[in-house]
Amino acid sequence: MNATDGPPGVPRGGPVRREDDILERIAAIVGRRAIPAGEVHIGDDAAVLAPFVGQTVVSTDTAVWGVHLDGGLFPLEDLGFKAVASAISDLAAMGARARAIVVAVTAPPGTDLEELHRGIADAASATNCSIVGGDLSVGRDVTVAVTVLGECPGRGAVLRSGAVPGDKILVTGPLGRSAAGLRLRRDGANLDHPLVIAHRRPWPRLAEGLAARGAGVHAMMDVSDGLALDLHRLSDASGVGFELDHIPVADGATLDEATSGGEDYELLLTTDDAARLGLIFHDRELRAPIEIGRVVADRTVRRLRGVGLERRGWQHSL
Amino acid sequence: MNATDGPPGVPRGGPVRREDDILERIAAIVGRRAIPAGEVHIGDDAAVLAPFVGQTVVSTDTAVWGVHLDGGLFPLEDLGFKAVASAISDLAAMGARARAIVVAVTAPPGTDLEELHRGIADAASATNCSIVGGDLSVGRDVTVAVTVLGECPGRGAVLRSGAVPGDKILVTGPLGRSAAGLRLRRDGANLDHPLVIAHRRPWPRLAEGLAARGAGVHAMMDVSDGLALDLHRLSDASGVGFELDHIPVADGATLDEATSGGEDYELLLTTDDAARLGLIFHDRELRAPIEIGRVVADRTVRRLRGVGLERRGWQHSL
Repeated sequence: MNATDGPPGVPRGGPVRREDDILERIAAIVGRRAIPAGEVHIGDDAAVLAPFVGQTVVSTDTAVWGVHLDGGLFPLEDLGFKAVASAISDLAAMGARARAIVVAVTAPPGTDLEELHRGIADAASATNCSIVGGDLSVGRDVTVAVTVLGECPGRGAVLRSGAVPGDKILVTGPLGRSAAGLRLRRDGANLDHPLVIAHRRPWPRLAEGLAARGAGVHAMMDVSDGLALDLHRLSDASGVGFELDHIPVADGATLDEATSGGEDYELLLTTDDAARLGLIFHDRELRAPIEIGRVVADRTVRRLRGVGLERRGWQHSL
Repeated sequence: MNATDGPPGVPRGGPVRREDDILERIAAIVGRRAIPAGEVHIGDDAAVLAPFVGQTVVSTDTAVWGVHLDGGLFPLEDLGFKAVASAISDLAAMGARARAIVVAVTAPPGTDLEELHRGIADAASATNCSIVGGDLSVGRDVTVAVTVLGECPGRGAVLRSGAVPGDKILVTGPLGRSAAGLRLRRDGANLDHPLVIAHRRPWPRLAEGLAARGAGVHAMMDVSDGLALDLHRLSDASGVGFELDHIPVADGATLDEATSGGEDYELLLTTDDAARLGLIFHDRELRAPIEIGRVVADRTVRRLRGVGLERRGWQHSL
């Protein structure tokens, strides 16, 4: 953690050590992993990492307490976990390998920063990724801005824009688990209900993304804002349309939750060789991707079983 | 800009395009620089960058409206500029070359996001660095979390921890300009007063950092929280003490502002060959570094002209 937050610029008297003290306690929580020789993580002006192999891939994502997670229903730990998981999911969506995370937190005085950082550390540890730096500032909201760095050796990152007419469209799993988990939690389900866990502790599909890149898929993205929004985005980027046969609904979820609930972080991809993709996933002991439809050349065609699929899902109003 | 902010998880009806629309307008402001062949910046799940040369260096920094910059005295643009400049300064402090920036913004509805991003784009442009990705979320505060990625070809990044007893201690310029500028602005000075500009539009010393790394300096950091705090941090990291002869006060600043005002972003460094450092700076047409004292072995010795230098400067209370 560096502490270069920048002052309002006025000199201050007296020895003030509070921020440095808290940074040390947080560093003990997030900095548990072994640091490779030649690397410097938390503690200097910046982190230093051994050279990356191939392209560098980077994404940033913010989670705000009360906006991205309901503070009345979930512990603060979960905000940290979700922020990291959703940022890492963006790397999974490129077929990248995650190398490092930096985390910038704002919080009002009195926030349990150690609890928050335990969630951050849990997600990093679950994805085998090191937290190499951070920053801490005072603010009215608890916010966690996570930036993830990864690498793409060999053939390059998979973009949203590569879908080709005739491609099959697949997702790496059934949808709606996260939205169903939130609904159940609101109705009183425990934090350890499997669908509630899917909402609190989403799992980025890094292994699936690597396998899909290896299989040469044409286009890929993660389903974070709902299939009915994200599939339109992928189609916009590729300049194509789509014909869907069905939307795979997870056990316990509704069709509406599967269509526009979002936050499942399954990968959405297109390929002209679905059989090869299936074999590679099978070889790596990954769940078989589910075919849901196909890419068409006419970009105005955006249909589910012949009926136009409305663009809807989560967006901020700003 | 991606828009994978993650919903509270509930399905939403109706076509909502506001966030995507605003992201397009912002992308037009921050994405003006030419994109090198083979790179993907704003618009996909993550940005893709051509391979880095040598070590990857990364730092993250947040600026909060009303905390890091007084909204009654400065335009919102300046918050964006300062956030980027202070993050880039951390790379300068390692002797790294800046390659790319990602920016995560939170703001309440109605915030002039285009003004904010103009400041962000100005700082990136001034330092010749591309904004390759971002994220936008609703929050009560305007916050700008900037992550900067850079590379260190050749000999590695310069750490805080390398100071050796006998080293000379130098800074790349006189101190206190930023704090003086804030004071003058509070007293009614115009935004274009040179010292006010030093506060609003700090200049990261990238060229100086590269030159210092090339000269083989032993330790380096940026003076962001005030010399009287940052020199203690460098000494702690190196396990050494210091004897200062003087603190160079910028024209128009007070000794107190130079000692603990912070945000000048001059580089603080130690070397056993100050003459060589001076020659290299001269060759590159950089201002001559100012010698201010020397490193001593006894880490309890922390003195300015024989009197103990109190550890003081800006820290958050959390």
